[in-house]
Amino acid sequence: MVSALVNGAASDRIDILDRGFQYGDGLFETIKLADGVLEFWNRHMARLLAGCARLHIPAPDVTLLRGEAQKLCAGATRGVIKIVVTRGAGGRGYRPPEPAKPNRIVALFPSPDYPDSFANEGVRVRLCETRLSEQPLLAGLKHLNRLEQILARGEWNDDGIQEGLMADNEDSIIEGTMTNLFIVREGALHTPDLSRSGVEGIMRGVVLDLARYLGITTNIRRIARDELGAAAEIFLTNSIVGIWPVRKIDGRVYGIGPIVGKLNAALAKSAKD
Amino acid sequence: MVSALVNGAASDRIDILDRGFQYGDGLFETIKLADGVLEFWNRHMARLLAGCARLHIPAPDVTLLRGEAQKLCAGATRGVIKIVVTRGAGGRGYRPPEPAKPNRIVALFPSPDYPDSFANEGVRVRLCETRLSEQPLLAGLKHLNRLEQILARGEWNDDGIQEGLMADNEDSIIEGTMTNLFIVREGALHTPDLSRSGVEGIMRGVVLDLARYLGITTNIRRIARDELGAAAEIFLTNSIVGIWPVRKIDGRVYGIGPIVGKLNAALAKSAKD
Repeated sequence: MVSALVNGAASDRIDILDRGFQYGDGLFETIKLADGVLEFWNRHMARLLAGCARLHIPAPDVTLLRGEAQKLCAGATRGVIKIVVTRGAGGRGYRPPEPAKPNRIVALFPSPDYPDSFANEGVRVRLCETRLSEQPLLAGLKHLNRLEQILARGEWNDDGIQEGLMADNEDSIIEGTMTNLFIVREGALHTPDLSRSGVEGIMRGVVLDLARYLGITTNIRRIARDELGAAAEIFLTNSIVGIWPVRKIDGRVYGIGPIVGKLNAALAKSAKD
Repeated sequence: MVSALVNGAASDRIDILDRGFQYGDGLFETIKLADGVLEFWNRHMARLLAGCARLHIPAPDVTLLRGEAQKLCAGATRGVIKIVVTRGAGGRGYRPPEPAKPNRIVALFPSPDYPDSFANEGVRVRLCETRLSEQPLLAGLKHLNRLEQILARGEWNDDGIQEGLMADNEDSIIEGTMTNLFIVREGALHTPDLSRSGVEGIMRGVVLDLARYLGITTNIRRIARDELGAAAEIFLTNSIVGIWPVRKIDGRVYGIGPIVGKLNAALAKSAKD
């Protein structure tokens, strides 16, 4: 069901001494394959390399990764490429091995089967009890330490709810378990500051750039939980789903407004390489 | 060099879809093998089961784990048994699979070769820049999300320094990268409260119990970074090293006092099963 390359060789196994397995010592990217194109490849690679630099993991060869991803995608038009880069195998103990010999895993997954209604009519969202902790050294990165997201996603089983929002300990909304958050107020776009928690999503960056291109004011700042009620539009983004308007958060109903429409139209027309 | 059992079968590989590898979605224990005894086995199992309950991972069969650990230890008198329990394989996405099919990995590592002087004359310690974030839902657990410890342990390369202490964002000292911390003041023992960050070490629990048995007052409370300077004795604990007195933290020198001596004597005589 999943085909994968581990350091270039077809395999679905990894060394138990790999520090990704032992400690979550690594990073990942999930990249949308649509019409045979690996969407926003360069942005994904830029984030991956920035993450490697931050964690002091030797950077993978991006050309090699591209070749491996394309090999897996041969003949496929739709799917999700997931890339994991870890610090590689090590002995017992947290001390990073010097020099590290990173492992790279590239795998092709099927496209998730979300109905079109999520993008067209919006999704239902809840507020999670699980808080995001604050760690500026890891904030923004798509690293392999994801227990907080797992606890948050484990809070509900209702398939009628598509996403949960997570706040930090100061009641600032940071993101969804797998998406970034945008709110619209008086025609301007606002998205949470991610310098202390959260993942800097690729689609978040794309949407911010599209908004600036369209002349929409953008603000990256603290968004208090209470502020959600004052938003004219709310939407969620990630690389795989694109833009999901929010139609309901717990009890409150939101309309699908003009800004999300403009952004979606611009996204549809934009180059995706 | 390492012999291991994955779900009971000899193997050094794990499925790349294992959620331990994908997200750090699991727990671990490191257990000292000395004179053929797996020290404090029951305490390790109690912590592992408590961790599984907290993360909603189905509990492993402890009798099975014991049998697997003993199989690997056959003929060995010294070493370290590491047990990893993960939520098992899952698809893409944070949602915990229902029902989960946990994976269990039991591996035998060689004993670390610390010189006796660390236990007899004390160790050198530094204060780390990397802070521990606060996450009460995960605090205390020995889970697989360990990037903070890796960043902290990556701060120094000087082999003359054996451990680094980590504070939280409020300048409370929480623990070492791989040890728990105790300070002695006016004959009483004080160790940091771990309800918001940190790992509840097995040797920490043993030392607290021994202290109570010896009639030494114990306090589990916030310890401000500034308080280290006021301590008469400082020591570090973990399951593998036992008790390490601290002889130096950055510039400041500490003596090896009577309390650590009493605790070491009591530890040497205590039952370790």
